[in-house]
Amino acid sequence: MHIDDLLKKSSEWLKGTGPKANIVISSRVRLARNFDGMPFFNRADAASRNKVLEMAKRLKEKSKYLKGSEFLLIKGMPDIDRQFLVERHLMSPEHMILPESKGLIIDETEIVSIMINEEDHLRIQVLQSGFNVMEAWRVIDNIDTELSRNCNYAFSPRLGYLTACPTNAGTGLRGSVMLHLPALSITNQVGKVYQAISKLGLTLRGLYGEGTEASGNFFQISNQVTLGYSEAELLGNMERIINKIIARERSTRNMFISKDKEEISDKIWRAHGTLKSARIISSKETISLLSLIRLGVDLGFVKDIDMQSLNELFILTQPAHLQKTEKKILSSQDRDHKRAEMIRDRLK
Amino acid sequence: MHIDDLLKKSSEWLKGTGPKANIVISSRVRLARNFDGMPFFNRADAASRNKVLEMAKRLKEKSKYLKGSEFLLIKGMPDIDRQFLVERHLMSPEHMILPESKGLIIDETEIVSIMINEEDHLRIQVLQSGFNVMEAWRVIDNIDTELSRNCNYAFSPRLGYLTACPTNAGTGLRGSVMLHLPALSITNQVGKVYQAISKLGLTLRGLYGEGTEASGNFFQISNQVTLGYSEAELLGNMERIINKIIARERSTRNMFISKDKEEISDKIWRAHGTLKSARIISSKETISLLSLIRLGVDLGFVKDIDMQSLNELFILTQPAHLQKTEKKILSSQDRDHKRAEMIRDRLK
Repeated sequence: MHIDDLLKKSSEWLKGTGPKANIVISSRVRLARNFDGMPFFNRADAASRNKVLEMAKRLKEKSKYLKGSEFLLIKGMPDIDRQFLVERHLMSPEHMILPESKGLIIDETEIVSIMINEEDHLRIQVLQSGFNVMEAWRVIDNIDTELSRNCNYAFSPRLGYLTACPTNAGTGLRGSVMLHLPALSITNQVGKVYQAISKLGLTLRGLYGEGTEASGNFFQISNQVTLGYSEAELLGNMERIINKIIARERSTRNMFISKDKEEISDKIWRAHGTLKSARIISSKETISLLSLIRLGVDLGFVKDIDMQSLNELFILTQPAHLQKTEKKILSSQDRDHKRAEMIRDRLK
Repeated sequence: MHIDDLLKKSSEWLKGTGPKANIVISSRVRLARNFDGMPFFNRADAASRNKVLEMAKRLKEKSKYLKGSEFLLIKGMPDIDRQFLVERHLMSPEHMILPESKGLIIDETEIVSIMINEEDHLRIQVLQSGFNVMEAWRVIDNIDTELSRNCNYAFSPRLGYLTACPTNAGTGLRGSVMLHLPALSITNQVGKVYQAISKLGLTLRGLYGEGTEASGNFFQISNQVTLGYSEAELLGNMERIINKIIARERSTRNMFISKDKEEISDKIWRAHGTLKSARIISSKETISLLSLIRLGVDLGFVKDIDMQSLNELFILTQPAHLQKTEKKILSSQDRDHKRAEMIRDRLK
């Protein structure tokens, strides 16, 4: 499998399937794991880091779950490919800088990916379409169990899994759910949601994780606490709270239909008209307008576009995806033209 | 002829015909005339004002030119009809307030209209499509000559025609040309035009004359000076200067095509998309967007709309026109819905 092959098909998590896919884009679970007896990445020298990379490679080769997957080195990879993998949510933005000794395992469906030598030796990720945290957990738990049979993880009976940053210690687990909350955003309720979930051990961030701005009304909710509870407790708690947010988004969308139908349909149809007409469009504007169309599909206004095509457009219009589709490096200005062209073409 | 009949057809000046109609919407000439021996409107009592109204009515009845035209009293006329006549440029906004003793003569083609007891006893107007000042002058001069045979105008051999406001004395003539200058506006050259023409005895104003804001990049250029030159000199001077402005607008539009094609087509197509999609739209936004479409038709981008339909939309989407079309009084909010509906319907 070559990275370019990924472009030809849609990631599993973009399919717009899975429970509550009209509000929840995707569910992700990741586990932070480190090899016993090896210094953490930030304390390790080059030799030790390379040894970790080697150990991960051998682990992959022995794994049944990772059989069809690819082992990639970040070093030597073109910038555009790194950016492409970040846009597809297969690795973190942090993993693409200082590529020395860094690796990435990805499976064909893009459900499973493992970053090697990011902050921890291994960051295992499972990404599912829709509201599917428990299914993601089931998959990652199986992979983790299999991997642990062929290596020794750094583990303390008292603290659980040991991690480079103490905030990840214990289960090493982070569940993240990417929500599309246009109704709560338009009615200025996101601040309230943020305050409420912060008190409940969860956090809310933008589209590409830590430190990124929420764009197009997409938000990631993750657990902050990793220690003192079982994985099932942590994810169950998260599911319960997110179900309440989903219900709130749902009822606000319904309120639009019953009370502000004209106003919201005006917003949605204007976005539709602009996307179908613009000749120059930035990535940021694209995301906000597609966000409104996505709401329009859910509310039944927009009938000529399906959820999967929409989800794909969010990714395909990102800079690296656009350039890989065009098979050349484009200036920011040229990208804005090509992006508008691609959108018009796909919405025709 | 009833006012409602006007709605069924297009005004002559909206036809988008006549010289340079891609830049010049219409050309207007008006003459201020007062009856000899009668006090000016602002000094007259009710009896005298009513007598002027009677004199005007008799003048109309004797006129060959005004044979097919209608004599209307502003008093008793519904507000919506008054607003409607202002929107069609058949009378000034000032003429609709304090309707006592005020009259209006309009001919079927809407080329000729005469306000009675506006600022002067008679304000005769001829309105033509395109850049047609001299033709408008020819028509109004004939009417004026005919009317003067059946009455005595207030006239001084030294000052010429006497008017309520001294700025109109002499010829009593004002030529106005309504220009669509989107290219000069977008490139911020209108200020320069304003300064240049002010020094040459001309003035520049918005869509509905004195004190109104320039909207949608439409500007009226009129002569300031009325005294000391012949009518032909005044209008000839105006024509010469406006021809230079037209040439500048033309060359700037051409520059868009050669240098900023993508940027300008993006602006135009976005306007097109918004007009075809919006569910709620204000009159002001409509004018700015239609203005861009008009430019798009001229530049050859937009091919599915003709100039006349566009010119008509500018008027049909005005508040009174919209309400007369819908045959009911609408709140501002309802108008914004109906306006969007009408535009979508007509651009389909």
